[in-house]
Amino acid sequence: MTHAHAMLQTHPRASALEEGPLLACIEACFDCAQSCTACADACLGEGDVEMVIRCIRLCEDCADICLATGRIVTRQTELEPAPVRAVLQACAEACRACAQECERHAGHHEHCRVCAEACRRCEEACEEALTSLA
Amino acid sequence: MTHAHAMLQTHPRASALEEGPLLACIEACFDCAQSCTACADACLGEGDVEMVIRCIRLCEDCADICLATGRIVTRQTELEPAPVRAVLQACAEACRACAQECERHAGHHEHCRVCAEACRRCEEACEEALTSLA
Amino acid sequence: MTHAHAMLQTHPRASALEEGPLLACIEACFDCAQSCTACADACLGEGDVEMVIRCIRLCEDCADICLATGRIVTRQTELEPAPVRAVLQACAEACRACAQECERHAGHHEHCRVCAEACRRCEEACEEALTSLA
Amino acid sequence: MTHAHAMLQTHPRASALEEGPLLACIEACFDCAQSCTACADACLGEGDVEMVIRCIRLCEDCADICLATGRIVTRQTELEPAPVRAVLQACAEACRACAQECERHAGHHEHCRVCAEACRRCEEACEEALTSLA
Repeated sequence: MTHAHAMLQTHPRASALEEGPLLACIEACFDCAQSCTACADACLGEGDVEMVIRCIRLCEDCADICLATGRIVTRQTELEPAPVRAVLQACAEACRACAQECERHAGHHEHCRVCAEACRRCEEACEEALTSLA
Repeated sequence: MTHAHAMLQTHPRASALEEGPLLACIEACFDCAQSCTACADACLGEGDVEMVIRCIRLCEDCADICLATGRIVTRQTELEPAPVRAVLQACAEACRACAQECERHAGHHEHCRVCAEACRRCEEACEEALTSLA
Repeated sequence: MTHAHAMLQTHPRASALEEGPLLACIEACFDCAQSCTACADACLGEGDVEMVIRCIRLCEDCADICLATGRIVTRQTELEPAPVRAVLQACAEACRACAQECERHAGHHEHCRVCAEACRRCEEACEEALTSLA
Repeated sequence: MTHAHAMLQTHPRASALEEGPLLACIEACFDCAQSCTACADACLGEGDVEMVIRCIRLCEDCADICLATGRIVTRQTELEPAPVRAVLQACAEACRACAQECERHAGHHEHCRVCAEACRRCEEACEEALTSLA
């Protein structure tokens, strides 16, 4: 069992979301934040950096919103649905934009291919958490 | 001139937003993140902490999303409107929820009164940035 | 292979650290940030919240420094040793302080026991990354 | 009075640091995080981006550690000196490294000149907070 899973199971309060989609969303957000931070940095280290300016920018934004979302969905105490829903929507939107850009570079930059995969998984996990929260 | 203002004026690319609402939004996001971090901690230091559990939780969420939003709106290079719009909406929503809760404690906790003020200013600044972006 | 591992292997530049300790450190930092965010929130949801004020505070600090460290050690391009070393030391220190406090509550709060474990693993991973960087 | 100042004055617990250096440090950390985020993005938008790769990387690191430090020094409840001291040292180190690099570009990129100024102020503010904490 991952620490994230154990932390969820030992929380004293019931969650407003089902455990499966919630755990998947928590883990995908932190994972995607790490991949996007790594992809922005890997792009910066490429010889053709001027071709991946947009990729770096979208990765930076995606990492920031994924970290905020990962922390927010981690919290179960006194959950207020409206802001949690809005942040999940923003995270899905940022993941979608970042995935689309990374996919354009996936053929020549392997890190963009991996990052796009992490973004697509996080986008889906946020959408499923939204369904579970609704 | 603040550093935030000077950084905006010296950016090599034109922004998609008008300077006034953009600068106000950047500054309000970082300011609100700081106030919410302080309010959560001040609540934690109060004798009646069990009365402000919800306030602490909403302040923590608001700080996280304000920091992410502050960094995202700071960036002008290759701005993609859809995720920026979504993150501004999420930030306004989190500020609104946090302000409402802080206002309930404003009569007996002065830090909640100040924090509510920072949240309301940030909520408005995000709404105005949204109008400017549209 | 985790996304973090794949991102490290596809980076265009050589890292200043050995792959094993570096990957362990990256993954431990994000994992510990998540556990500490969860533990602070779980403590907040406990009936005896006034007994875990110090635990909440140390968890919040530990989460913040773990996230910053996780992002910083993720970056391989143009690594400057002095600040990376200092941030790894700060992260190890925060993990140690948080683990000590969580261990005091591990007998009655299972989430504190799990969080202490995540903190100890991250403390060790930062120490090993420091040895690898030196 | 800034919100940060008002939040400090309305905190229910006494701080371990003197108010002057503490407030200066809190404000400098958030200010420097914003400037570094802006400078990394402005560098990314320059025509000669391949000349400022190192500047972007050091700005990203500096922004991350400044945000963590800003949040940590904002908290007064149950302050544990060892990790706070370590994080202030890490922040000062990151600001110094970033300022040195930004100063190299200050002649041709005005945003680097402004950012170096924000970094130097934050470096000093962290050093003074360390003296006050000792």
